[in-house]
Amino acid sequence: MDFPPSAADCISPLDYRFWDPEIAKHLSPRAFLRRQIQTEVALVRAQAARGLCPDKAVSEVTAAAGQITWEEVMIEEDRISHDIQARVNCLRAKVSDETKPFIHRFATSYDIIDTANALLYREAAQDLVYQRLVVLVHTLLDVAEREAATAQIGRTHGQHALPITFGLALAVHASRLNECALNVFENAPKLRGKFSGAVGAYNAASKQLEDPEAFEKEFLALLHLKPAEAGTQIAPPEPLTTLVSSIVEACGVMANIADDMRHLCRSEIGEVSESFAKNQVGSSAMPHKRNPITFENVKSLWYVVKERHGTVLSTMISEHQRDLTNSAAGRFLPEIFAIAAIMAKRLNKAMAGLVVHREAMARNLDTARTSIAAESVYTALAAKGHPNAHEKARQLAVKSREIGQPLMNLILEDEEASKYLADTPIEQLTPTPGIAEHKARSIIAVLRNRYVW
Amino acid sequence: MDFPPSAADCISPLDYRFWDPEIAKHLSPRAFLRRQIQTEVALVRAQAARGLCPDKAVSEVTAAAGQITWEEVMIEEDRISHDIQARVNCLRAKVSDETKPFIHRFATSYDIIDTANALLYREAAQDLVYQRLVVLVHTLLDVAEREAATAQIGRTHGQHALPITFGLALAVHASRLNECALNVFENAPKLRGKFSGAVGAYNAASKQLEDPEAFEKEFLALLHLKPAEAGTQIAPPEPLTTLVSSIVEACGVMANIADDMRHLCRSEIGEVSESFAKNQVGSSAMPHKRNPITFENVKSLWYVVKERHGTVLSTMISEHQRDLTNSAAGRFLPEIFAIAAIMAKRLNKAMAGLVVHREAMARNLDTARTSIAAESVYTALAAKGHPNAHEKARQLAVKSREIGQPLMNLILEDEEASKYLADTPIEQLTPTPGIAEHKARSIIAVLRNRYVW
Amino acid sequence: MDFPPSAADCISPLDYRFWDPEIAKHLSPRAFLRRQIQTEVALVRAQAARGLCPDKAVSEVTAAAGQITWEEVMIEEDRISHDIQARVNCLRAKVSDETKPFIHRFATSYDIIDTANALLYREAAQDLVYQRLVVLVHTLLDVAEREAATAQIGRTHGQHALPITFGLALAVHASRLNECALNVFENAPKLRGKFSGAVGAYNAASKQLEDPEAFEKEFLALLHLKPAEAGTQIAPPEPLTTLVSSIVEACGVMANIADDMRHLCRSEIGEVSESFAKNQVGSSAMPHKRNPITFENVKSLWYVVKERHGTVLSTMISEHQRDLTNSAAGRFLPEIFAIAAIMAKRLNKAMAGLVVHREAMARNLDTARTSIAAESVYTALAAKGHPNAHEKARQLAVKSREIGQPLMNLILEDEEASKYLADTPIEQLTPTPGIAEHKARSIIAVLRNRYVW
Amino acid sequence: MDFPPSAADCISPLDYRFWDPEIAKHLSPRAFLRRQIQTEVALVRAQAARGLCPDKAVSEVTAAAGQITWEEVMIEEDRISHDIQARVNCLRAKVSDETKPFIHRFATSYDIIDTANALLYREAAQDLVYQRLVVLVHTLLDVAEREAATAQIGRTHGQHALPITFGLALAVHASRLNECALNVFENAPKLRGKFSGAVGAYNAASKQLEDPEAFEKEFLALLHLKPAEAGTQIAPPEPLTTLVSSIVEACGVMANIADDMRHLCRSEIGEVSESFAKNQVGSSAMPHKRNPITFENVKSLWYVVKERHGTVLSTMISEHQRDLTNSAAGRFLPEIFAIAAIMAKRLNKAMAGLVVHREAMARNLDTARTSIAAESVYTALAAKGHPNAHEKARQLAVKSREIGQPLMNLILEDEEASKYLADTPIEQLTPTPGIAEHKARSIIAVLRNRYVW
Repeated sequence: MDFPPSAADCISPLDYRFWDPEIAKHLSPRAFLRRQIQTEVALVRAQAARGLCPDKAVSEVTAAAGQITWEEVMIEEDRISHDIQARVNCLRAKVSDETKPFIHRFATSYDIIDTANALLYREAAQDLVYQRLVVLVHTLLDVAEREAATAQIGRTHGQHALPITFGLALAVHASRLNECALNVFENAPKLRGKFSGAVGAYNAASKQLEDPEAFEKEFLALLHLKPAEAGTQIAPPEPLTTLVSSIVEACGVMANIADDMRHLCRSEIGEVSESFAKNQVGSSAMPHKRNPITFENVKSLWYVVKERHGTVLSTMISEHQRDLTNSAAGRFLPEIFAIAAIMAKRLNKAMAGLVVHREAMARNLDTARTSIAAESVYTALAAKGHPNAHEKARQLAVKSREIGQPLMNLILEDEEASKYLADTPIEQLTPTPGIAEHKARSIIAVLRNRYVW
Repeated sequence: MDFPPSAADCISPLDYRFWDPEIAKHLSPRAFLRRQIQTEVALVRAQAARGLCPDKAVSEVTAAAGQITWEEVMIEEDRISHDIQARVNCLRAKVSDETKPFIHRFATSYDIIDTANALLYREAAQDLVYQRLVVLVHTLLDVAEREAATAQIGRTHGQHALPITFGLALAVHASRLNECALNVFENAPKLRGKFSGAVGAYNAASKQLEDPEAFEKEFLALLHLKPAEAGTQIAPPEPLTTLVSSIVEACGVMANIADDMRHLCRSEIGEVSESFAKNQVGSSAMPHKRNPITFENVKSLWYVVKERHGTVLSTMISEHQRDLTNSAAGRFLPEIFAIAAIMAKRLNKAMAGLVVHREAMARNLDTARTSIAAESVYTALAAKGHPNAHEKARQLAVKSREIGQPLMNLILEDEEASKYLADTPIEQLTPTPGIAEHKARSIIAVLRNRYVW
Repeated sequence: MDFPPSAADCISPLDYRFWDPEIAKHLSPRAFLRRQIQTEVALVRAQAARGLCPDKAVSEVTAAAGQITWEEVMIEEDRISHDIQARVNCLRAKVSDETKPFIHRFATSYDIIDTANALLYREAAQDLVYQRLVVLVHTLLDVAEREAATAQIGRTHGQHALPITFGLALAVHASRLNECALNVFENAPKLRGKFSGAVGAYNAASKQLEDPEAFEKEFLALLHLKPAEAGTQIAPPEPLTTLVSSIVEACGVMANIADDMRHLCRSEIGEVSESFAKNQVGSSAMPHKRNPITFENVKSLWYVVKERHGTVLSTMISEHQRDLTNSAAGRFLPEIFAIAAIMAKRLNKAMAGLVVHREAMARNLDTARTSIAAESVYTALAAKGHPNAHEKARQLAVKSREIGQPLMNLILEDEEASKYLADTPIEQLTPTPGIAEHKARSIIAVLRNRYVW
Repeated sequence: MDFPPSAADCISPLDYRFWDPEIAKHLSPRAFLRRQIQTEVALVRAQAARGLCPDKAVSEVTAAAGQITWEEVMIEEDRISHDIQARVNCLRAKVSDETKPFIHRFATSYDIIDTANALLYREAAQDLVYQRLVVLVHTLLDVAEREAATAQIGRTHGQHALPITFGLALAVHASRLNECALNVFENAPKLRGKFSGAVGAYNAASKQLEDPEAFEKEFLALLHLKPAEAGTQIAPPEPLTTLVSSIVEACGVMANIADDMRHLCRSEIGEVSESFAKNQVGSSAMPHKRNPITFENVKSLWYVVKERHGTVLSTMISEHQRDLTNSAAGRFLPEIFAIAAIMAKRLNKAMAGLVVHREAMARNLDTARTSIAAESVYTALAAKGHPNAHEKARQLAVKSREIGQPLMNLILEDEEASKYLADTPIEQLTPTPGIAEHKARSIIAVLRNRYVW
C-alpha cells in the first residue's frame, strides 16, 4: 500500500485545502481504528462479565488497545491482505497466549465493523456535525435578535414584495436549521450495533452460548448501543441512511442561507457584506470589492454533498446475506459528515462577522414603497367596496411614479380615492412589516429555550 | 392549454402503462384541486367561528365546493392565466355577493397551496403509500412464517456461507421495510400548513386581526394541521423532504427484496419463482421460462424513484422570501409517491404468489455442506487447541471433494483429527442454521404485534 | 389495464399542465408503436429484397401498418399479457395466411424494440429537441445583435466588475447553447439498431440464413440505421446515454441563461423583464409586479431533468445477455426529451419578448464607475511605477465617494497622482467594455454562418 | 492552513486506501500547481515572441518555474490569503525586477486557472484514464480470444436462454468499453484555454494590445490549446462536462463487466473465479472461499463515481460573468478521474487473472439443454405447420424432465412429433451458439486493428 508523501500529493481537497484536525479526529481511518479497538475490548469485557474469560483478559486487552497504532496495522495488512485480521493479529500479539483466544471470539468481521461504524458515526453526528450546527443556529439567533426590528423589503421572485425585518428572515433560517440539527441529534442514537455473525443467524455463537441474543445485548450495552431488530451479515443500512439524509437536509438549509446572503451582497442591493480582515475595516466605502466568497463556498460545497447522498441510497441494496458492493462506497461516507462540518464552520464565521448595511436596507425599502404601497391602497379600497379597486390603485401608482409625488399625496388630491378612504387610518394605507419583529423575537425565544448551555 | 386526447398520447408511463385509479385518487391534479377547495372552505369556517363572517357563508361555500370541477377551473385559468385566482373565481361565482369577500380573505396563494399540499401528501403518505407498505410487510411475514423452518444456504458475496432459514431472510426484509413504513407514517403528520401571508410576516392579516398567529392555528386546526414554526411565503420544505426520504428508503428496501428474489430465481439456483397464471400451474417442469419480470420491474422503478429524490433536495433552496424555482419541480413530486405505491403493490403480488422450491433449497444447501463444513471443523479444531487448525481443515476438505467422501468420514479416519475431536459432539461439526428459525419467529411475532387490523 | 379518464386524473404534469401535442407526436406510446410497426414493415421488405418472401407480403403488411391502432393493440395485450406479441398478433390479423409467417420472422422482441427506439429517439433529438434549441439560439443571436453595443456592467460574484455589452453576454450564451445543440445533432445518428437475436449470437437467424450479419445490415439500412458493433439481447446503451448527456447539458445552459435573466429582473437591478400581455403594456411604471416566472420555470425544470440523467446511467448495467431492470426505467426516458423541448420553447418565448431596460443598464453602469474606476487608476499608476499603487487608488476612491466628486477630478487635484499620470491618456483611466461589441458581433456572425435555413 | 500529519489522518479513502502515485502525479494539487506554472511561463514566452518583453525574461521565468515548490506557495498563501497571487509572488521573487512585470501580465486569475485545468484534465484523460481503459480493453480481448469458442449458456433475466460463447460475451464488453475509451480520447482535446480577462471582454489586454484575440491564440498555441469560442471570466464548462460524462460512461461499462463476473462466480454457477495468491493455488477444490472482492469493489466504486457526475452538472451554472459557486466543487473534480483510473486498474488485474472454469460452463450448458431445446423443437414444429406447436413442445419437455429422458428420444417415440419433424435435420432441433465464435473473432480483429502499440 502506498501513501501520499505530503498533502501536496493528495487527491481529495478534504485532505489538503479543507483539512481540519477536529474533523480528522472524528472521521479519519485512525479514528475508525480506535472505534474498532474499542469494540474488541468491549467484546472481551462482555465475556468477562459472564465469566466466559478471566478478568486478566480484560486488563491485558485494554492495555494492548492503548498501544496499537494505525501504522503497525497497515504493515500487517500489507503482509496478510486482510484488514480485520491484521487488526486482530496486532492486538493478539500484545497479550498473553491465555488471552489470545478471547479476542474477536465468536465474531465475524462485520460484527466489529458495523458496531464500530455505529460508534463512529453516532459520535461524528453528535459531537461534530450537531455541535457545529448548534453553534451556527445560535449565531443566527444572535444576529436575528440584533436585527429583529431592522425593516427590510421582503422579496419574492427577486421582486420587492412586502416589508419584513431582517431579523425575521434570519430567525426563519435559524428555525429551519434548528429542526435539521434536532433531526441529526435524534437520528444519531438510532444507529445499531450487531453481533449476529456471518449470516445474521448467530451460527457460531449459538454453538457455544445458550442465548446469543442476550450476549449481543450485553456486549453492545457496554458501548451504549442496541442491537438491530434483525440483520444479515450486516446491520440494516436504513438508520445510517436516515441520519445521512438529515445531515444533507441541514446542508440544504445552509446553502439556502448562503444563497440569500450572497444575493443581498450584490452591488445593487448591498444590504450585507462579509467582514474583512482588520486592516481593511475602513474600506466600507468600496463595498464592490467584497466578494461573498464564503457564501459562494458554502453553496459550492452543497453541490458536492447533495450528490454523495445518492451513493448512500445505492448501497442500501446488498444481495442475500450481503455482498461487498457497499464496502468501497462506505469508505467515502465520512466525507458527507466532514463536508457538513466544514459548511457549518465556514458559514458560522461569515454570519458571526456579517456586516449589515442598515442604511442600504432602509434605502431599498424606501425605493420599494411607492410601488408596493399600491397594494395597501388596493386592499383598503376593496375593503371599502370600490368596484374596480385594483385598477384604481394601479393608476394612482403609475401617476405617482411619473410625477415623482408620494402616493399618499395623490390619494388626498384624488376625489374618488379620498372619498372611499376618508375614514381609513393612514397606517392601513402604509405597507408595514406586519408582525415581523414580534415573530422574530418569539422564534428566537423558543429556540433559545431549547438548549441548555 | 392542450390536453392529451387519449392515454396513447401521454408522455409519462405513469399515465398509461402504470396508471392506477387508486393512485390518481390521491395524487392527480383533480385530487389537488379537492384539497385546495377544502382549504378554502376551512378558511371561511375559521372566520365564522370567530364571528368574522355570517354562518351563511359557510353553508354557501360548502355547497359551492361540492359543485366545482377541475374542468371549469382550467377554462377560467386559460382565460386569466393565473391558476389560484381561477379557482377563487370559480368558487366565488357560486356564492352570493355577501359571501364572496370571505373567500380567500387575507390569503396569499401559497397559504392555500402549501396547506393543501400538506393535506395531499399527508393523506397520500398514510392512506396510499403506508397502507401498501403495510400490506407488503404482512405478506412478507406470512411467507416468512410458512418458511420459518425451511433451511437455506446463506450467501455472502454470492458465495455459499452458512445456513439460515428462508423464513429468516424474509423476516429480515420485513423488519427493514416495517421500519421504513413506520418512518413514513410518523413523518406524514409532521407536514405543516401556513397562513402567514406573502412574506411570512402576516402583513395583510395583521392589519385586520389582532392575533393573526392565533387565527392561523384555528384555521389549520380545522384541517388537523399545525402551522410551521416559521416560514416565508412558503412553509419550510424540510418536513416534506424528510417524508420523501423515508419513502425513498422504503423503495430501496423493496428493491433489495426484488434483487434477492430475482437472483434466487436464477436457473442454476432455482429456489423461488414468480407464480404464473392458472393454466400454467403445471409448468414447474420448465422453470427456465419463468422470468422474474415483476422483481425486475420493481428494481427498475427503484432506478427511477431514487433519482427523483435529488430534485426534492434541489428545491429546498428558495431565495429570500421565496422564488418560484420550486414550482414546476414540485408538480412532479406526486410521481415519487405514485412510484412507491406501484412498487409496493407489484412486489406484494409477486411475494404473495411466490413459489418456493424447497427441494432446490435443500439441494443447494446439501451441495454447500462439504465446503462449508470445513469451517465448523476448523472452529472445533481451534477450540481444542490444534496449532494449525485452518490448514488441517482445508486439507481434509480438499480430500473430501477429491475422493467424493463426506468430510465426517475422513475425520474419523484421520488419526490427528479424530484425536483432537474425539469428544466434540457431532453437532458441533455440522453447519446448522444457528437460531435462524427462532429469530425468524420472534421477529414475526414482534412485527405482528405492532399492528391492530 | 386502466387509463386516466381525463387529464385531470393524470399523475405527471407532463400530461396535463405541460402537455404539448408536438412533443406527444414524437414521444408518446402512440409514436413508439408507429416506430415499431415501421420496423416490422422494414423486416418484411428486407426479406422481399432477398427473395425470402413474395412482394405481395410487402404490400399487405404496409397496408396493415396503416390501419393498426394503439387501442386495438392494448386490448390484445390485455388478453395475452405480452406487449410485443400483441402488436404482432394485430398485424398478422390484417394480412393473408401466406404473409403471416414473414411478420416478425427471426426476430426477438428487442430486435424490434431497440431498433424502433433508435428511430424514435433519433427523430425526437433531431426534429424536436435540436430544432427547438436552434430556434432558441437564433433568438439569442437576434437579441444579442440588437444589444451588441449596449454597455452593461459585468458582474462577478454578483459584484460589479468591469463593463461588457449585454450583446456579448447573450452571444456567449448563444455560443454555449449552440455547441450543445450541435452535440445533440451529432449524437442522434450514432444510435444503433440490431437484429442479432435473443442473446446477440444470431442464433435463430443463423439457422436459416448464411450471413445473418449481412441481413441485419440490409434490414437496418432500410431504416437508415446501422447495426451496433456488438450487442447482447439489446444494443449497447452507451450511444443513447451519450445523446441524453448532450441533451441534459443543453438544459444546463438554458438554466444558466434563465438564472442570469431572472437576476437581471431583480427590483434593484431592473435591467430586463419578461414581456407581458397586451393590456399590460402600460405598466412599465410598476416593474416590481413583473415576476420572471418563465425564467423561474425553466430553472425549476432543470432541477427535474438533471436528476433523470442518473436513471439513464443506472440502466447502463444489464446482467449477462440482459436483465429487464432497464425496462420500466426506459419507459420514462421520453420525459427527458420532452422536458428539454419544453424548456427550449418557454425560454425562447421569454427571450424573444425580453424587455431590455437600457436606461437601467446605463444607470447601473454609471453607479459602478466610481468604484471600478479605481482599478484602471491602480493599473495605470502601477504601469508608471508608483510604489504603492493599489493603496493610492483605494484612498482616492474612498475620498471620491465621501465627498461625492468624480474620481478624475480628484486625480487632477492630487499632486502625487497627477504627477504619475500626467501623460496617461484619459481613456486608459476609464473602464471600457474592452472589445465586447466586436466580440459579440463576430460570435454572432460565426454562429449565423453555421446554419442554412 | 492545516495538513494531515499522516495518511491515517486523511478523510478521503482516495488518500489512504486507494492512493496511487501514478494518479497523484496527474491529479494532485502539486500537479495542478505545475500546470499553472507552465501556463505562466507560456504567457511570458508569448510576450517574448511578440517582442513585448526581452528574451531574458523567458529564461529567468523558466528557471524560476523549475525551483518553485508547492510548500512555499502554501506558506505565501497563508500569509496573504489569495491562492493565485501567492503563486505569482513566489514566481516573481525568483526573477529580476525587470522581469517581474511580465509575469501574469494582462491576466485575470481564471485566465491561468482555466487554462491550467485544460492542460491538467486533458493529460489526466489521455495519459491516465484512457491509457488504463485501453489496457483493460486489450486484456478483455486476450481473454475473449482465448475463450472465443468456449460454449456458454446465454442468460436473459438470469434465466437460461440460448447458447453463446464466453468469448463473445467478453468481446461485447470490450467493444462497449472501447467506444467509451475512444470518446474519452476524443473529448479530451476539446478542452479549451482562455485569455479573455475578468469578464470575457479582453478589457485589460485590449488597452495595451491591438489584437488581444490573436495574442490569446498565440499564447494558448504554446500549450497546444485553442481558445474557447466565447466565455466570461471562465471558459464554458461544457467541454469538461462532456469529457466527464464519457469517463462516467466508461465506469458504467466497467461496473457492468464486474457485475457479470461476480454473478458468474456465484457458488451455484461457478463459471469463473478471481485468481488468488500463489500459496492458494491448490484451493480450487474450495471455490466457495473465493469471494469476488475485486469485482464487488469495482461495482462499489461505480456507486461513488456515478453520483459525482451530478456535481459537475450543477456547476455548469454560473451567474452573469461568473460566480464562485463552481470553485470548491471544482476542486473535487480530480476524484472522478482518479476513481475511473482505480476501477480500470483493478478490473484489469482481475480480468487478466480470471480463472475460467470451462467444465462448469459445459455443465451449466448441458443442464440447460433440455429446457431450452424445447424452443428449437417449437420453432421447427411451427415451421412445419403444427397447429399448436408451443403446447406440443412444452408437453414433450415436461415429459422429458419427468422421466429423465433426452428430449430427442421422446420426439422419435412420439408419433405426432416424428411425423412433423421427419425431414427436419437434427441440427435444427439442437440449440447452438449461432455465429457466436465468428462474431467474437471478428470483433476482436476489428478492435485490435484500431490500436498501434
